[in-house]
Amino acid sequence: MVELILKKKHGYVLSESEIDFMVQDFTSGRIPDYQMSAMLMAICFKGLNDEETTFLTHSMVHSGEVVDLSSIPGIKVDKHSTGGVGDKTTLILGPLVAAAGVPVAKMSGRGLGHTGGTLDKLESIPGFSVDLSTDQFLHQVKTVGLAVCAQSANLVPADKKLYALRDVTGTVDNISLIASSIMSKKLASGADAIVIDIKVGDGAFMKTVKDAEHLANMMINIAAKMGKKLVAVITGMDQPLGYEVGNVLEVKEAVKTLRGEGPDDLTEVCITLAAHMLVLAGKYSNLDTARQELILLIKNGKAFEKFLEFVKAQGGDTSFFEKENFPESPVKFDFVATKDGYIARVLALEIGNASVCLGAGRETKDSSIDPLAGITLVKKQGDSVKKAMFWLLYSLQIKNILKRLWNI
Amino acid sequence: MVELILKKKHGYVLSESEIDFMVQDFTSGRIPDYQMSAMLMAICFKGLNDEETTFLTHSMVHSGEVVDLSSIPGIKVDKHSTGGVGDKTTLILGPLVAAAGVPVAKMSGRGLGHTGGTLDKLESIPGFSVDLSTDQFLHQVKTVGLAVCAQSANLVPADKKLYALRDVTGTVDNISLIASSIMSKKLASGADAIVIDIKVGDGAFMKTVKDAEHLANMMINIAAKMGKKLVAVITGMDQPLGYEVGNVLEVKEAVKTLRGEGPDDLTEVCITLAAHMLVLAGKYSNLDTARQELILLIKNGKAFEKFLEFVKAQGGDTSFFEKENFPESPVKFDFVATKDGYIARVLALEIGNASVCLGAGRETKDSSIDPLAGITLVKKQGDSVKKAMFWLLYSLQIKNILKRLWNI
Repeated sequence: MVELILKKKHGYVLSESEIDFMVQDFTSGRIPDYQMSAMLMAICFKGLNDEETTFLTHSMVHSGEVVDLSSIPGIKVDKHSTGGVGDKTTLILGPLVAAAGVPVAKMSGRGLGHTGGTLDKLESIPGFSVDLSTDQFLHQVKTVGLAVCAQSANLVPADKKLYALRDVTGTVDNISLIASSIMSKKLASGADAIVIDIKVGDGAFMKTVKDAEHLANMMINIAAKMGKKLVAVITGMDQPLGYEVGNVLEVKEAVKTLRGEGPDDLTEVCITLAAHMLVLAGKYSNLDTARQELILLIKNGKAFEKFLEFVKAQGGDTSFFEKENFPESPVKFDFVATKDGYIARVLALEIGNASVCLGAGRETKDSSIDPLAGITLVKKQGDSVKKAMFWLLYSLQIKNILKRLWNI
Repeated sequence: MVELILKKKHGYVLSESEIDFMVQDFTSGRIPDYQMSAMLMAICFKGLNDEETTFLTHSMVHSGEVVDLSSIPGIKVDKHSTGGVGDKTTLILGPLVAAAGVPVAKMSGRGLGHTGGTLDKLESIPGFSVDLSTDQFLHQVKTVGLAVCAQSANLVPADKKLYALRDVTGTVDNISLIASSIMSKKLASGADAIVIDIKVGDGAFMKTVKDAEHLANMMINIAAKMGKKLVAVITGMDQPLGYEVGNVLEVKEAVKTLRGEGPDDLTEVCITLAAHMLVLAGKYSNLDTARQELILLIKNGKAFEKFLEFVKAQGGDTSFFEKENFPESPVKFDFVATKDGYIARVLALEIGNASVCLGAGRETKDSSIDPLAGITLVKKQGDSVKKAMFWLLYSLQIKNILKRLWNI
């Protein structure tokens, strides 16, 4: 391993067998963390080329279990977002694509840091269970057309170990490491084709369109080398997506959107990503037809019906949506503008971090979540405000938090 | 620590308190190895400036015990070599400088890898003990003028941990890390002034004169910032120093040199380094006078007398030298030139590594040493050879080794 570290440090290209040795022996614990962290830092300085990144992805996929979706007919398309604030697209996309007749078998993760996680959002629906056995999962995809479950513990263990180490050694931001982490998880989950939603802006990993394009190109190249189709869509994350940030709040907004009453930005991102999924799956030959079909599925209520069917299948209480009686946090704080004017910026990162403080997200892996906590943005960028309320905060710990966040 | 890693990764300068936090918390175990190795790799890419290196050195010195030599009168001068093959200068320098009336209080290390260690060489003298208490050590310096003992376990613990980590993470070759490692040990050993012998060439850490000058300048600057005098001497290490490599063989050659019968290269390096030590100690005002005195001390037998006194004081059997009955390995192998010609190169690194295989050095910290193993270079660079013997190998494991080294 020391030789490999020195090789990368001096800017040489690592071979397939060297990368595989490194990944497998690190996963098994034979290569200690302190050697891998030196390697990761060397990679941050010297980079990995497309081939090395492909080898890394391939080796990571095979560090653990690979899900077999072959019993589900057709091309299995998965979608991934690089993570943003207020990003509830999976909750909307899943039922939309399934309603269009393309099965969606989705394994998701939990939120960490300022970005939320699909599992946490779904679990804010009373009774909803994300812990499905492989048989339950496959059965539901076949019968309902849509299932979302937690990633198995043995899915890409290399990524779990690597990600944890990168997080504490200042080596998160290398584009090859990001690309291989995302792609290995999607490929191990059994995807034949992938739509990647690369978030760009203040609240995303990628801060500039240039970086986002760099990541997109790298992922397209890796996918091509691995014989998989991949479409990358770059979407804005300078302000949160939609108006709601926080688990139950986001479910509420997803339901609204599935009923055709959602905010424009969120609806547009969902239709675009879903249209790419339908085209990749071979359901439609072009995006326009796919879009028209998706808009129709919202209008005629089929998308929302599919959502209810999906929630019921996983044990969730749908009376929650049907009666529109969403639970609400007992503690609420109105943010009021002190003068008239226009909202210049709604910093996604700040809103994301604030929502974590309120209890909507996790500061560390072991933090617990308050499903009702979050922020409603009454106004967004460019909107005019009068001396009036423009944000709503929900949290049980409101007093400590306001003090901590804004010295109120 | 993650913030500090990112700061250095992005090329910023670390403050004194940041460096001190990093060194002390790493030494105590609060900062884990995997974070420090990422930092070390970032330092390899972004470097440390003279100020950062000085802060690092200072913090390392105070990570453990600092030896108090104030009870010994005068300026205490220490010498350090960056490590070479056949480097037995301390065995010669010590008695020479002591014979000139300047006390030498030397703490030494053991050999690791292809370079030998002074302690291992001294311990090849039957009865010689390097384990002295502080009182014994100071008493001997006062009465004999020379003592050499093993570094206390608590001398610069930060360096012990850092060095072990650098060794296995490909981060050995940064000049600031090398400089702070050397200087912290010398300063913690109580030195007021230091002569550094920077070896340059194939068998040394520094491969080029430019690198050696870079290290020399950095150490001179750090010493100046810390109010200490430092002289750096750059000496060649393309081929081994002298003709003998291996513990008892080197003691034999040191004795020869103290008697005025040593090889020219070794004698010259010793006289030069010793002359600088005498001038730094204030014994002589210029190098020429110091050199003349040192040559006289060899000629009139005083240097060798001092050596015998020193060996006896530490329990060594001097009959070993007086009767010239050096023990010899029972197994010997003659290397014979297969044709007439000239020796183009005697690769110091290869000879060093070969001597380790023969049992003269350690491959890992826990390897044991055969004091009689080693190599005698009958010929050196530029010498003519007939179809005849030119190296002698001594080792108990000769057959395995020849197979391993040269497929014989």
